[in-house]
Amino acid sequence: MHAIHETDVTVLGLGAMGSALAGALVEAGWRTTVWNRSAGRAGALVERGAVEAASAAEAVRASPLVVVCLFDHASVHEVLDPLVDDLAGRALVNLTTTKPEQARESAAWAARARIAYLDGGIMAVPAMIGQPGASILYSGSEQVFRTHGALFEQWAAGTYFGEDAGLASLYDFALLSAMYVMFAGFVQGAALLAPAGVSAGSFAAMAAPWLTAMTGELAGYAEVIDGGDYTVPGQQSLTFSNLGLFVEAITEQGVSAEPVAMVQRLVQQQVDAGHGTEGFARIVESLRHPAPGGRPSAV
Amino acid sequence: MHAIHETDVTVLGLGAMGSALAGALVEAGWRTTVWNRSAGRAGALVERGAVEAASAAEAVRASPLVVVCLFDHASVHEVLDPLVDDLAGRALVNLTTTKPEQARESAAWAARARIAYLDGGIMAVPAMIGQPGASILYSGSEQVFRTHGALFEQWAAGTYFGEDAGLASLYDFALLSAMYVMFAGFVQGAALLAPAGVSAGSFAAMAAPWLTAMTGELAGYAEVIDGGDYTVPGQQSLTFSNLGLFVEAITEQGVSAEPVAMVQRLVQQQVDAGHGTEGFARIVESLRHPAPGGRPSAV
Repeated sequence: MHAIHETDVTVLGLGAMGSALAGALVEAGWRTTVWNRSAGRAGALVERGAVEAASAAEAVRASPLVVVCLFDHASVHEVLDPLVDDLAGRALVNLTTTKPEQARESAAWAARARIAYLDGGIMAVPAMIGQPGASILYSGSEQVFRTHGALFEQWAAGTYFGEDAGLASLYDFALLSAMYVMFAGFVQGAALLAPAGVSAGSFAAMAAPWLTAMTGELAGYAEVIDGGDYTVPGQQSLTFSNLGLFVEAITEQGVSAEPVAMVQRLVQQQVDAGHGTEGFARIVESLRHPAPGGRPSAV
Repeated sequence: MHAIHETDVTVLGLGAMGSALAGALVEAGWRTTVWNRSAGRAGALVERGAVEAASAAEAVRASPLVVVCLFDHASVHEVLDPLVDDLAGRALVNLTTTKPEQARESAAWAARARIAYLDGGIMAVPAMIGQPGASILYSGSEQVFRTHGALFEQWAAGTYFGEDAGLASLYDFALLSAMYVMFAGFVQGAALLAPAGVSAGSFAAMAAPWLTAMTGELAGYAEVIDGGDYTVPGQQSLTFSNLGLFVEAITEQGVSAEPVAMVQRLVQQQVDAGHGTEGFARIVESLRHPAPGGRPSAV
């Protein structure tokens, strides 16, 4: 039923994301072998043309390219460590969400086992796979990235960051962190306006174009950060950026000011260190060099 | 030299913002009277055609419309309280940054003194006044807003939110809070990538379009928040939004995870309360109903 492609592919892990990844390949005509640790996840994919393997080992042997999308770093090694001999000489693409150091550890493990290793961070929810707007960040083996580019394009736009396997995860975490923090800023505003009878929807209609316009400021902040001189003219000073009045006003409305109070702590740390007349971009130094004895950021 | 317009105008307070506001009016041909508490700030404006008053009382008496842009709420009342008799029957536009409750207090004070009061929040830096992209939020006397619309347009696009004088400040603080928190999210990402040799500029080039795309999610979150049912299908669950791995990864790079840890606390509070399977938008409830005994958000 399916054309045999130069590159057959195996997908290990059929959670929501793994199923979406395998589904996109099946639809595009790749011969796709699938496996999941717990049974009963492959039915719909098999109906669409995927081949279900009876074991992870059988799945790995079926294709020169093995894609893993499992629960976490530990699951990846539980599944793959017993299969190093089968994986030797094959290409492994790890799309499991892992920390940069974990990606680097997997890359070193793969190098020892003569496995060509590419790490990836998915910037999409499962429903976006194969749709415009989805993006996957890759790092590790450039050869794997180049050889299988046509297959990766079935999932999302791909960007390659370099041989350091931890880079994709670093960029992934950096972009997703910025996103989650922005979302918290939005709910801060929505929570503040709610007691005055303003709907979150009305606020979203104003906040989305406002925040979009304000992303235009990021390049300017970045230029100051990269230049390393926070005294260059034309910046809003840290003293002017004091958000104490915001924290007070939000608290007076009976709402927690937690997101804004976080920013204020970053500002205050720099003001306390004598940098009040310097630019707002200097708050990055509060993250790079946390105050000794400051509140630990781990939760 | 200047045409006499139907509405002459007085501007009290010639800091960077007050000077920009007065300057835009002078340029547009309004007969503009200016005053500043400390001397020596009016020179450039007078050269361009403004009239400098010798006292605040003289300045107030010069025009039917009085604009104040002072340091804070206390300065406004220090300057204006002795002048209630002169202000009676005039229109007062207060563009000083104040809390919603302070704006309401000023409106009540003005009503007692038969002053028509309009409060405003400026969504711009001084250099943006009179330029595209600047915006001013107004609330309070609708009559003042309508009567002086042509003058306000010299400064920025104006939006009127209603007779409650605190609304402009509420919207102002809500939008600026969202902006400052988004900026903190950006520096979180920049600080995370820096140890890997990635410049803030490279990150900004990725983060700006990424965050812009993600503002597209705000309307969906708002719909869930306004609906009040965080169990509606199709949402990313709070459990899935656990950012513990992010906090770990960022800390492992030697960087403070303060911004992401803030989001994680909002998530964790809802998970701890048994809502882990519900949607991420539920973090707004962590702000609306802060956990008793939780860390105070005031700084």
